[in-house]
Amino acid sequence: MSKPALAFIGTGVMGRSMAGHLLDAGYPLFVYNRTRSKSDDLVARGAVWKDSPADAAREAAVVITIVGYPRDVEAVYLGAGGILAALPEGGLAIDMTTSSPLLARRIAEEGARRGLACLDAPVSGGDRGAREATLSIMVGGDEATFARALPLFEAMGKNIVLQGGPGAGQHTKMSNQIAIASIMVGVAESLAYAKKAGLDPERVLQCIASGAAGSWSLSNLAPRALKGDYAPGFFVKHFIKDMKIALESAEAMQLPLPGLALARSLYEKLSAGGGDDEGTQALLRFYFEGRHG
Amino acid sequence: MSKPALAFIGTGVMGRSMAGHLLDAGYPLFVYNRTRSKSDDLVARGAVWKDSPADAAREAAVVITIVGYPRDVEAVYLGAGGILAALPEGGLAIDMTTSSPLLARRIAEEGARRGLACLDAPVSGGDRGAREATLSIMVGGDEATFARALPLFEAMGKNIVLQGGPGAGQHTKMSNQIAIASIMVGVAESLAYAKKAGLDPERVLQCIASGAAGSWSLSNLAPRALKGDYAPGFFVKHFIKDMKIALESAEAMQLPLPGLALARSLYEKLSAGGGDDEGTQALLRFYFEGRHG
Repeated sequence: MSKPALAFIGTGVMGRSMAGHLLDAGYPLFVYNRTRSKSDDLVARGAVWKDSPADAAREAAVVITIVGYPRDVEAVYLGAGGILAALPEGGLAIDMTTSSPLLARRIAEEGARRGLACLDAPVSGGDRGAREATLSIMVGGDEATFARALPLFEAMGKNIVLQGGPGAGQHTKMSNQIAIASIMVGVAESLAYAKKAGLDPERVLQCIASGAAGSWSLSNLAPRALKGDYAPGFFVKHFIKDMKIALESAEAMQLPLPGLALARSLYEKLSAGGGDDEGTQALLRFYFEGRHG
Repeated sequence: MSKPALAFIGTGVMGRSMAGHLLDAGYPLFVYNRTRSKSDDLVARGAVWKDSPADAAREAAVVITIVGYPRDVEAVYLGAGGILAALPEGGLAIDMTTSSPLLARRIAEEGARRGLACLDAPVSGGDRGAREATLSIMVGGDEATFARALPLFEAMGKNIVLQGGPGAGQHTKMSNQIAIASIMVGVAESLAYAKKAGLDPERVLQCIASGAAGSWSLSNLAPRALKGDYAPGFFVKHFIKDMKIALESAEAMQLPLPGLALARSLYEKLSAGGGDDEGTQALLRFYFEGRHG
């Protein structure tokens, strides 16, 4: 049985690696990206360039998108010349952007009206997870559609879980980002305190990182910050985007999240000071320099 | 060479296990505790009961204390009939209570004036770490005194690090508690969001606990809370005590810690609602019930 043709929209740092795994797995692949040059290496490996998302979708059985902001998702799916209008009936659309749960539901509803199946399937694991095909993939949609998409997900990730109906993938990603937000505040405050108290922060980490204060961030991001390395694993500007979506979504559910609100306000200050293109661990420097108070 | 006589002040849940390891290691042991019955099993195993901290210290070469609050530490060390007045010259006093870094320095200075060596050496690892002699021990004091105390520490713990001069052990413990404080907020908000969004929180954990949102608390405390188990590993009232010390210490250094201040205010509300004797994971129920807003 020949493999269905895929359209892949959004070949940035994450998308390029993910689309590459699908090519390697033998799927015919149409690609589109706002900046064409970011698809060049995929085209060199056999992908076919298309001049718009709709053009890419028109000849595909499955469209996968991973773009920037919810407004980009909205434009690509629902706008004039959007994917849902172009994808042939019976097609499957999978949005892997971290985006709004409510928008994911709107897309699923609109897709259903057009005879299309839709999934929201944001990921975690970063550029490394994308490169090594070890992403966690958090999926919202129905079980039959999930089963249909599973071989594609398995080419890109490892920890793949159907979390519920449309929007549930995005909600799960929001839960993930909400946990990270306050952890980053805790890590920054812990080490800012240690520095201010005249301790050696590396030696403090040695005592606390493996115990009840332990976290992925403390073990992986704090050592980078202490070495003065603020290069992005995950960009401050993207983290702010995610926190904004989470806060809006929580507000829509009338759930106050004071820890998340605090983290967002701290990152907004960091951003206002020029931190947008640094990694999220730049919050530690922000505290070390006393700019958070 | 016969082992030096020890006095152990404070045989609560932690102290009892720790003193037991020292008995097992062959040290002669005097014991005192505010509630005498909590020393009974140690006395049955060979420890000698004394009627006051001073009485215990008077015949010892080394005093170890692990009591409740900084005010208790102050009373036991510096009060009328305190340890520093009773301990023979050349003696060593080790406070393992989680207490104020400034008080630790005052005790070390007063001890030095009396010809005594002092260490602050709070621990992490909880009742289980105490039972299994796997505590992390964070030490403040000078190197020679640390070397002298090391065999005692090795009977009680595993990860034993001299962090700096007097007070540095307490400062390190504060760094630990500061990290935990915001992590608990993040974990509570993450799972409160998941529940409110209609997700299955256990399935969400499956997706997020091993990635960038991962923490000891998310892996160890969240599953307990989701099963409705709010029994104390670490008491809410003790955590509030620690956060209060950390905030006072940070204020003295003019370091604002908004995340810690938020965590404390949330735990104070939980305490006001009767949560003092629950475990710190009760913050999750507090959020689940919408009492945090």
